[in-house]
Amino acid sequence: MIKVGIVGGTGYTGVELLRLLAVHPDVQLTAITSRKEDGLPVADMFPSLRGRVELAFSAPDKADLSKCDVVFFATPHGVAMAQAPALLAAGVKVIDLAADFRLKDQASFEQWYKIPHTCPELLEQAVYGLAELNREAIQGASLIANPGCYPTTMQLGYYPLLKAGLVDAGSLIADCKSGVSGAGRKAEIGSLFSESSDNFKAYSVAGHRHTPETTAQLQRFTDEKVELVFTPHLVPMIRGMHSTLYARLSKEVSNEELQSLFEAEYQDAPFVDVMPFGAHPETRSTRGSNMLRMALHRPGNGNTVIVLVVQDNLVKGAAGQAVQCMNLMFGLEETAGLMQIALLP
Amino acid sequence: MIKVGIVGGTGYTGVELLRLLAVHPDVQLTAITSRKEDGLPVADMFPSLRGRVELAFSAPDKADLSKCDVVFFATPHGVAMAQAPALLAAGVKVIDLAADFRLKDQASFEQWYKIPHTCPELLEQAVYGLAELNREAIQGASLIANPGCYPTTMQLGYYPLLKAGLVDAGSLIADCKSGVSGAGRKAEIGSLFSESSDNFKAYSVAGHRHTPETTAQLQRFTDEKVELVFTPHLVPMIRGMHSTLYARLSKEVSNEELQSLFEAEYQDAPFVDVMPFGAHPETRSTRGSNMLRMALHRPGNGNTVIVLVVQDNLVKGAAGQAVQCMNLMFGLEETAGLMQIALLP
Amino acid sequence: MIKVGIVGGTGYTGVELLRLLAVHPDVQLTAITSRKEDGLPVADMFPSLRGRVELAFSAPDKADLSKCDVVFFATPHGVAMAQAPALLAAGVKVIDLAADFRLKDQASFEQWYKIPHTCPELLEQAVYGLAELNREAIQGASLIANPGCYPTTMQLGYYPLLKAGLVDAGSLIADCKSGVSGAGRKAEIGSLFSESSDNFKAYSVAGHRHTPETTAQLQRFTDEKVELVFTPHLVPMIRGMHSTLYARLSKEVSNEELQSLFEAEYQDAPFVDVMPFGAHPETRSTRGSNMLRMALHRPGNGNTVIVLVVQDNLVKGAAGQAVQCMNLMFGLEETAGLMQIALLP
Amino acid sequence: MIKVGIVGGTGYTGVELLRLLAVHPDVQLTAITSRKEDGLPVADMFPSLRGRVELAFSAPDKADLSKCDVVFFATPHGVAMAQAPALLAAGVKVIDLAADFRLKDQASFEQWYKIPHTCPELLEQAVYGLAELNREAIQGASLIANPGCYPTTMQLGYYPLLKAGLVDAGSLIADCKSGVSGAGRKAEIGSLFSESSDNFKAYSVAGHRHTPETTAQLQRFTDEKVELVFTPHLVPMIRGMHSTLYARLSKEVSNEELQSLFEAEYQDAPFVDVMPFGAHPETRSTRGSNMLRMALHRPGNGNTVIVLVVQDNLVKGAAGQAVQCMNLMFGLEETAGLMQIALLP
Repeated sequence: MIKVGIVGGTGYTGVELLRLLAVHPDVQLTAITSRKEDGLPVADMFPSLRGRVELAFSAPDKADLSKCDVVFFATPHGVAMAQAPALLAAGVKVIDLAADFRLKDQASFEQWYKIPHTCPELLEQAVYGLAELNREAIQGASLIANPGCYPTTMQLGYYPLLKAGLVDAGSLIADCKSGVSGAGRKAEIGSLFSESSDNFKAYSVAGHRHTPETTAQLQRFTDEKVELVFTPHLVPMIRGMHSTLYARLSKEVSNEELQSLFEAEYQDAPFVDVMPFGAHPETRSTRGSNMLRMALHRPGNGNTVIVLVVQDNLVKGAAGQAVQCMNLMFGLEETAGLMQIALLP
Repeated sequence: MIKVGIVGGTGYTGVELLRLLAVHPDVQLTAITSRKEDGLPVADMFPSLRGRVELAFSAPDKADLSKCDVVFFATPHGVAMAQAPALLAAGVKVIDLAADFRLKDQASFEQWYKIPHTCPELLEQAVYGLAELNREAIQGASLIANPGCYPTTMQLGYYPLLKAGLVDAGSLIADCKSGVSGAGRKAEIGSLFSESSDNFKAYSVAGHRHTPETTAQLQRFTDEKVELVFTPHLVPMIRGMHSTLYARLSKEVSNEELQSLFEAEYQDAPFVDVMPFGAHPETRSTRGSNMLRMALHRPGNGNTVIVLVVQDNLVKGAAGQAVQCMNLMFGLEETAGLMQIALLP
Repeated sequence: MIKVGIVGGTGYTGVELLRLLAVHPDVQLTAITSRKEDGLPVADMFPSLRGRVELAFSAPDKADLSKCDVVFFATPHGVAMAQAPALLAAGVKVIDLAADFRLKDQASFEQWYKIPHTCPELLEQAVYGLAELNREAIQGASLIANPGCYPTTMQLGYYPLLKAGLVDAGSLIADCKSGVSGAGRKAEIGSLFSESSDNFKAYSVAGHRHTPETTAQLQRFTDEKVELVFTPHLVPMIRGMHSTLYARLSKEVSNEELQSLFEAEYQDAPFVDVMPFGAHPETRSTRGSNMLRMALHRPGNGNTVIVLVVQDNLVKGAAGQAVQCMNLMFGLEETAGLMQIALLP
Repeated sequence: MIKVGIVGGTGYTGVELLRLLAVHPDVQLTAITSRKEDGLPVADMFPSLRGRVELAFSAPDKADLSKCDVVFFATPHGVAMAQAPALLAAGVKVIDLAADFRLKDQASFEQWYKIPHTCPELLEQAVYGLAELNREAIQGASLIANPGCYPTTMQLGYYPLLKAGLVDAGSLIADCKSGVSGAGRKAEIGSLFSESSDNFKAYSVAGHRHTPETTAQLQRFTDEKVELVFTPHLVPMIRGMHSTLYARLSKEVSNEELQSLFEAEYQDAPFVDVMPFGAHPETRSTRGSNMLRMALHRPGNGNTVIVLVVQDNLVKGAAGQAVQCMNLMFGLEETAGLMQIALLP
């Protein structure tokens, strides 16, 4: 059994990790920390876990995380970088669900996240935890930077097109929509039911932290300069993310060839479902599951290709993807503990 | 492996059965029928099942259900009674999720459901599938009448009080609230998003079919005449049911005694969670799971006791409860395949 | 034109007052205060008001409210009592949408609201602003205690029954449901979209401040001791309130007599709609309007009468009712500025 | 008073017309037809209208629409073209909220709507009812083709850019999102609460009828060939539409110049609100009102300009826009009866 610790278990990615790990056949939940909730049984905060998770939160200084085999950080940016060096030194693997190790470029990190990076020496060894594009590196990693939710959809949607050199890398437009849980379990006016229900809006259109992360990763697959316009929107639903990805074709290619390309790329990816050409994936078809679904379109058979991508932002976009990485790091089946079927309706 | 057939798999209880049975360790999905959708792969209708359920719908006359060990009827009222006799004669166990066998009294059935009963001779042998109150009978049953969603909450909430003779059986008031999925996957104006979202209303206040079912079952536990006012309401949420049960105490009893009574009654029930006295169970704490949670209240320490009961109407209120019965009928662990943790948030 | 000031305009009752008063034909919006938002144009916070309300928030010490004809307090409990004495002394009428003057009994106020009352001498002169039951007193009032949202529905629903002596005043059960906006525009975890959407729960079942307010008001209409069990619930919708009121009949009465009683009581009330016997009012039929609708039921023609009452908690339950009082206090038509038709769908 | 008839009043645009016209100072509601609901009081179907609209539906053959001054068609495509010729001949003005007269090109109409056009001779005289771009023509019109909801947002967002020749007309991408009421009050599985709540998806990506309508109208303002990729999505909200419009700048222009351009174009448009550069308009800021709001963005100061446009699809996108046309046709103030402030929250 893998001994697992969770730092920061009071947010939505934290409780989602608990939901997944509590029934994972190879995991023993060992410690979960919270500065504020020291001593509180986890199930008192999250009644869905009553009878299933017996752990209580413990203050960070009381939890001996060095006895764990792996520690997940479901914390705000900046926490993992403070604790990761000591854990790694103690032989504990680290999976950070925040952004501390997502950008290889320290300056870029500090520009976008407005905090100094305290262990830039780890940036090189950190492995970006997108299993579909990085499986081998993850298998050998000690420190994982779990991808952002939006970047997961954008990378998996654009990657086959860029790698095959079929589209103009300089004019990508990603119009993305997220459920409200993406804002986290924070007491903020904008996330209130009465503010975000029965409403729709864009946000951070001038610039969002997930742009540099996505651009840097996509740049690995093409020599052309990647230029991405990324527009996030807020949808009045709890979970779910839908990315509508536009690209301009720069080569002659048939729809059948496009479809075959995507199917071939993801044929061994257990959590990517390439739907039939022209399908309309729905976010609810992934609700609570680690599946990401996508479908290709080409309006009027013109030179614009559209990739529609959906996932559950808390599972494939966060906690599920992190467990997927853990599975690979510990030599388990990639799908272990992650075969929940989506809740529909 | 138990060979399972499903009649009527295109509704919400049908797809929920599929979600549960597709990962049940002891089940082999064998046939699923639909008059309209003959030949359509199930996963084409419910994309959440893509890659997980390979079956296609088959027309009722093509599916040889007699080869199954058990057949679930996730159909409108009246279908199971037409097919159950032949299946039972062929040695196939039958679990009806509709109302055909819920009322022992044929006249009452015909009065409330407005159709003649075509196999009243089976009413006596049919076992009411509420495992918590009927476990032994279910274990030996061939024909199960799976309880209605509302009646499940009302029976489990009132039963300990009535059995202990603590309340006036003649003045029960059950104010119940259900998510919209309870209306089924039927194209009706009243169930449209634009009609039922951001809205709340009562319905069928003059009389609902779940009243006679509940009253008849509760009457088993008391000599007093049970009189129940049951008021159903529609909540703008997909899944979930919340019953607020009022009863007038007829004996002196302390809150501690009440709490102990409930805890004792349900200590061996894996799917009933008696929360601490004064708790406020939330429907979402059961979303997608087979758990039913309840908590006791006594406003102003007066003579009214309130039992708050929540469940997922499609799981413990329908498909999960049916699988729970199947487990008992086939000598499996009662919890087999039913340990999903609720999806929160 | 009536010069109107609003204290505390950054909450939901505040913006709702602005929506109503900005188009009121006899009103001139004069000042709106906010401690935190001094100088911010109101329409910057509430873009629905762009081009319609030119006022900016001003700090409480800068706004000369004594030049107003009437000041509305859309503030937390405790604010109005601090400022009302000076305003009243300056000849300014005061309408408090919070609870400072709702309870005539100072001890009861201090017990339920946990703050000392700083001007108990005003409690006697304060008029409870439920126009339907108190029209004349409101017309002559200088200080109005605007009713709570739940109490409005409970009083208007129970009043005809109690006044006519038809029901047992000692066993009233009010099962009430409110939209989330009732919790106000406060950054609290429990009011987040991800916490309250797709969910239903009861709260404060052990005791809620609206119980003593309702009981005290209802007691005016009967010599029997009023005993009320009041159970509030939270509905995943923004606006709307539905109260399901149970009472036990203590006299012989026909359904027609009950219906006639209610129709007669409210025939001159422009904002109370007595629907046909057996109707099921929907909250959305009042969304954005000052109408309150109700309908009577009597399940199985037994001795329980049910009154279903719906309103928009922010309009008839708060801001609209306050404007209705203002109209009466200034000799205007009771309906002036309040004839918006509900938004359906 | 203008005598108004409505054909097809049982849908959402019908009831929205009623909500607006019932309080319009210059209108007398004269007749409302419904094939199915002959004799039913309108307020029995839409309780929000109780006490406010006394009309009953009448069968089409019983209603003498020729006595009206203007008739609104809130019907499916194909109905208006059947009745308009006779009404126009009788001197009655006609406003069609469906698509019968939106496309000047008969062949294009028949291709996209799959029905023959029965009065193509009226296509030339029909005026496209987008007041902001067509005000004078509307003032003199007898027959109005009320614009589609999506096309309204796309035209008002792209128009200033195309007219000024600032962008590449051949690479417009419109990523649009609509509330569920856009699907109408029709009993269809896909519009059920349990199907569309807590879900997000694109639809009709391969081709939507609003593309040719928008392209044809936009083509009026540029000599370049307009090529538009239009991707509609369904949002789990009742009302509201958000269009995210992308265009590639083809000339040097500063953000200030862009902003000034839009402000100048719409300075006399009472229902277009150009928000500050970089703002994020929310659909709820238009809920129930005839306002359309927009804001400009330019990510990274690159060569992509984004116009965010929001409106209430049932008001400015349908019924409100139709009333706006009526006002102009009859020489009233453009804003008469249309000054409702949006419902927020």
